[in-house]
Amino acid sequence: MRPDLLSRVLSLLPDGGTRPELRQFSEMLRDYPQRGGKGIRSELLLASAQAHGVAHDTDAWDQAQWLAAGLELFQNWVLIHDDIQDDSEERRGQPALHRLYGVPLAINVGDALHAYMWAAVHRAGVPGAMEEFLTMIHRTAEGQHLDLSWVEHREWKLREADYLEMVQLKTAHYTVIVPLRLGALAAGVQPASAFTNAGLALGSAFQIRDDVLNLLGDPLKYGKEIGGDLLEGKRTLIVLRWLAQAPAEQREVFLDQMRRDRAAKDPAVIAQIHRWLLDSGCVTAAQDYAAARAEEGLSLLSSALSGAPGQAAVQQILGAMRALATRDA
Amino acid sequence: MRPDLLSRVLSLLPDGGTRPELRQFSEMLRDYPQRGGKGIRSELLLASAQAHGVAHDTDAWDQAQWLAAGLELFQNWVLIHDDIQDDSEERRGQPALHRLYGVPLAINVGDALHAYMWAAVHRAGVPGAMEEFLTMIHRTAEGQHLDLSWVEHREWKLREADYLEMVQLKTAHYTVIVPLRLGALAAGVQPASAFTNAGLALGSAFQIRDDVLNLLGDPLKYGKEIGGDLLEGKRTLIVLRWLAQAPAEQREVFLDQMRRDRAAKDPAVIAQIHRWLLDSGCVTAAQDYAAARAEEGLSLLSSALSGAPGQAAVQQILGAMRALATRDA
Repeated sequence: MRPDLLSRVLSLLPDGGTRPELRQFSEMLRDYPQRGGKGIRSELLLASAQAHGVAHDTDAWDQAQWLAAGLELFQNWVLIHDDIQDDSEERRGQPALHRLYGVPLAINVGDALHAYMWAAVHRAGVPGAMEEFLTMIHRTAEGQHLDLSWVEHREWKLREADYLEMVQLKTAHYTVIVPLRLGALAAGVQPASAFTNAGLALGSAFQIRDDVLNLLGDPLKYGKEIGGDLLEGKRTLIVLRWLAQAPAEQREVFLDQMRRDRAAKDPAVIAQIHRWLLDSGCVTAAQDYAAARAEEGLSLLSSALSGAPGQAAVQQILGAMRALATRDA
Repeated sequence: MRPDLLSRVLSLLPDGGTRPELRQFSEMLRDYPQRGGKGIRSELLLASAQAHGVAHDTDAWDQAQWLAAGLELFQNWVLIHDDIQDDSEERRGQPALHRLYGVPLAINVGDALHAYMWAAVHRAGVPGAMEEFLTMIHRTAEGQHLDLSWVEHREWKLREADYLEMVQLKTAHYTVIVPLRLGALAAGVQPASAFTNAGLALGSAFQIRDDVLNLLGDPLKYGKEIGGDLLEGKRTLIVLRWLAQAPAEQREVFLDQMRRDRAAKDPAVIAQIHRWLLDSGCVTAAQDYAAARAEEGLSLLSSALSGAPGQAAVQQILGAMRALATRDA
């Protein structure tokens, strides 16, 4: 995230406290934001504001930046809770917050950051922005419920359409649709309805690329453990395609591992499954699917923004969206 | 909670869904609100609005009711997360949500209810209400951090002042101060500054009474397991007073149990400690302290509201606050 936006995020959070426990609380609130997320969503929001005509050093630009701070705070509280829900080991190259401080304190810090997110939204004072954040959280929580309930019930009888519905709820709204819409609202412009279909396509491409990187990525760049999704039993397009065509014997080995809790999974068998997935061609196929969805989304977005006043920012948005679907970290 | 308020709360939440998982999500969102909480805080808010001159069947009354719905939603999302943090078994006479559905899904439902709380606050449209909810969450989260970090670090070297600071942060704001203030704001009136000290005294009395009931209460009325605080290792005024005067041998038995996780605690020894606490007189002493704090708070509140237009509602508030500090469930 850009330094001035990070400063704005941190300016909302307590710094220190009257007793050691509250100083620790304040450090925990500041921890994830300071780990240097890429700020993909806040950049998209700011570029959308510029595309819709917001100029630097105006009140509308200041309002857009408070909304961007709100998006970053959203991302951070969700990640804290998500890491607990998945029992992830790492986040942005460091141990997940609950692994440093325990689950109860980490849940509480996520809740407090959630409230600080609303402080940023309120501070922005942009009509309609609160409704956007409400919709974003509701859709994301529904997607998260699908994902987590499949893990909870060891549910693997899923079609690709189930995965795509989950990803559209869980990722597309907060990663693409809502940032685009908030940028328009900061400019006082009614968001284009085409942002929704564009965002569903681009958000799917973005998440599938993330699933691919989890199997293929460079551990130094990626910031999470490679293969972690297999250990956490995550449903991905890759795995669902592979399951539909894998030899019965391999499928049985896979399902046997997935019936186990993370700690009871056998790392050697998980590594074998990882190789089967890579050898099956399903990773490449998912990558191709993501690229096609990205093109579809880019085309919709390009049309929707063709008449926007800030064409330099429009090009920046299209370039960034294209890069996301082909990124390697 | 009164039936019309429950209907208002439920009207904000999804009912059903397009697939079985989302129907389950919607049931989970509705579960705690439908378990019949007492609605103490929403009643206080509505009585405060009436005390400040809001009449039934006015727009201001409708706004006050949306704020009351917001307070109930706050209470419910906090309880879901609190039950996970404490690994509580029961809530309102039924298994805690995470014991029915697992921790990951329950965290997510708490997060979604948190957002629905903001939908209620937004719907109310009362100037200043959003700031009140932000302050309430920040203070409650700070108090929660103190409480949970003492459990996490097995910290028992605490003074009574530490406990009281924690309780004032964790309970007084959301139980008394903010409901009183929101009622005034719904009437378009600046809240009296004396509500703060009145609420700190009454909130402490309320929580200490809760701690007493956890040791003394009637299981059929109380809705949580009697003695659960000891199993969860909660700090209370009762235990801190007892520790300061208990025979070294008893203290050692206590601290040995408190160093253990809940599952490793010996129920027979916990029952023995429970009897020591009752026999020590510390439960009665805490009850007397709570009664004195309640009188202090009632006196401050009575003065602050002496000139308010709705004196019938003022008497209702004072009666309800007195009842809370002496309640048996």
